Amino acid sequence: MGRMRDLDKEETYLVDRKGLAVELRDLVGSGPTPADTQEGKASLPGPYGLLAYGEAWWVGRLLGLSEWTEEGTQFLLEGGYDLGAAQALGLVAETGKARLVRVELPPSPLNPYRYLRYILLAMGKAEALSQVDRLLLEERKRLGPEVPLEENPAKFLAFTLLERTPLFYAPGYPGLAEAAQGLFARIGKSLSLTPPPTALEFFLTGLEARHEQGDPLAAVLLGRGAEVSLAKEILESRVDTVAELPPPEDGASPLAQALALWYRLAWTAYYLALLYGVDPGDQEVLSRLREVT
Amino acid sequence: MGRMRDLDKEETYLVDRKGLAVELRDLVGSGPTPADTQEGKASLPGPYGLLAYGEAWWVGRLLGLSEWTEEGTQFLLEGGYDLGAAQALGLVAETGKARLVRVELPPSPLNPYRYLRYILLAMGKAEALSQVDRLLLEERKRLGPEVPLEENPAKFLAFTLLERTPLFYAPGYPGLAEAAQGLFARIGKSLSLTPPPTALEFFLTGLEARHEQGDPLAAVLLGRGAEVSLAKEILESRVDTVAELPPPEDGASPLAQALALWYRLAWTAYYLALLYGVDPGDQEVLSRLREVT
Repeated sequence: MGRMRDLDKEETYLVDRKGLAVELRDLVGSGPTPADTQEGKASLPGPYGLLAYGEAWWVGRLLGLSEWTEEGTQFLLEGGYDLGAAQALGLVAETGKARLVRVELPPSPLNPYRYLRYILLAMGKAEALSQVDRLLLEERKRLGPEVPLEENPAKFLAFTLLERTPLFYAPGYPGLAEAAQGLFARIGKSLSLTPPPTALEFFLTGLEARHEQGDPLAAVLLGRGAEVSLAKEILESRVDTVAELPPPEDGASPLAQALALWYRLAWTAYYLALLYGVDPGDQEVLSRLREVT
Repeated sequence: MGRMRDLDKEETYLVDRKGLAVELRDLVGSGPTPADTQEGKASLPGPYGLLAYGEAWWVGRLLGLSEWTEEGTQFLLEGGYDLGAAQALGLVAETGKARLVRVELPPSPLNPYRYLRYILLAMGKAEALSQVDRLLLEERKRLGPEVPLEENPAKFLAFTLLERTPLFYAPGYPGLAEAAQGLFARIGKSLSLTPPPTALEFFLTGLEARHEQGDPLAAVLLGRGAEVSLAKEILESRVDTVAELPPPEDGASPLAQALALWYRLAWTAYYLALLYGVDPGDQEVLSRLREVT
């Protein structure tokens, strides 16, 4: 790939043709807001059911709400290429007694935050959202292009992952590893791995024959706890390098921690795209998907 | 790896030191049976809650039962290295009104079948189980070591996957791709990949830069339908080879189809271990995990 690119030089950012850095920087507070949103008050009546498709899937996993509700509000988050699954379920949902609320955003790899924000506001959980937002704004201070490599954990991690295949493990945060895999594909244009639910057995057995094969792996351990420690112990002798991302703030809610880690990985994927010299945006690629569907 | 091993020669099977081939062959009907099992009658009262940990996780995903029940029977499937999660939840479950039924089997990569069998019998779903069993016995006829390569789809697929990294995609069967990833690690001692929930976007974007990197990928598409066809179209130009495994019998239940595909992949992982010249058993590896936990 020729000469190593410099993340502290402006010319490196020329490949970012659609300005994803700006979208990343301005993420907090973006996206639709439910009508009649008032401080501390649910704008839509509970109980809630949440069907989350396409780019919204992670929000469903994170919030752990039941998918369907008989009364109250039935959310249907669409957005993305689900081959009509959301539409079909929307027709079913329309026959119920609950009020059906559909949300669909134009494609962006950063939409999970926006769908989450909408749902939290609609449920009157402004406090939970402000915890998320505060942590993201804290993270932003040290992740942007203006922060030089030696003080920027996202730039640093991108260099660690360059020419390696990341293996994400996040036992404490539902779906975060898969969400990271999505970010690295869509923004970083990079292949990465996630383990199956029996992750420790997978780490012990699946990497045994690895030395005979190709790419060096880089384990990325998200969060902390007994499972993360054990994974580290197992993986240290089996992968090329282990990167640890502890929760950015111990006292914060698990939801805010998950989003903050996700946000740091989004920036990391962004810098990785720049290091590979490819556009971190994916409009053109996704319009190809539209053509075939 | 030296001279190519011959799956139709007895000497190739010497690495199978614990006789996993026999366990694979005799899988149908193995495992514990609930007390008082009678034809067509639930031996344990409903409604049912199912907490499925470790090697049982896939059964939870396949059956889609709710995790907890207030009355009836609360199943707790343990087995595997969950760092006490099952035990802790067991203590919680004991405080409820439902009868708590714990099942824990000695470690084996083939346990998902056995946990599933137990639950189906306990719920009086002997008919669903016999559909599964019939399909597995049909599969077995053409998957064993005595069936030569040219008539044996598992041997054939193992050769296709040799020196490649499998990428499993199974949109119609919950958790099957991750279950396959587990089988290939534990039996085949091989690394493999699964896509995140937004699989089509992942296929389009995550494999773009792939040509700069290492191992050739082999996509393994499980089942059929619009998503599988689209994935094939996208992947054909992006991976080294695409293997298609349609459901073994169109009229069978999705559950039986999922188990039959899983069984074929278990045999495939077995042959892959032999081709790599490694023991398809994993007792020794897992005892190392016991040491660290």
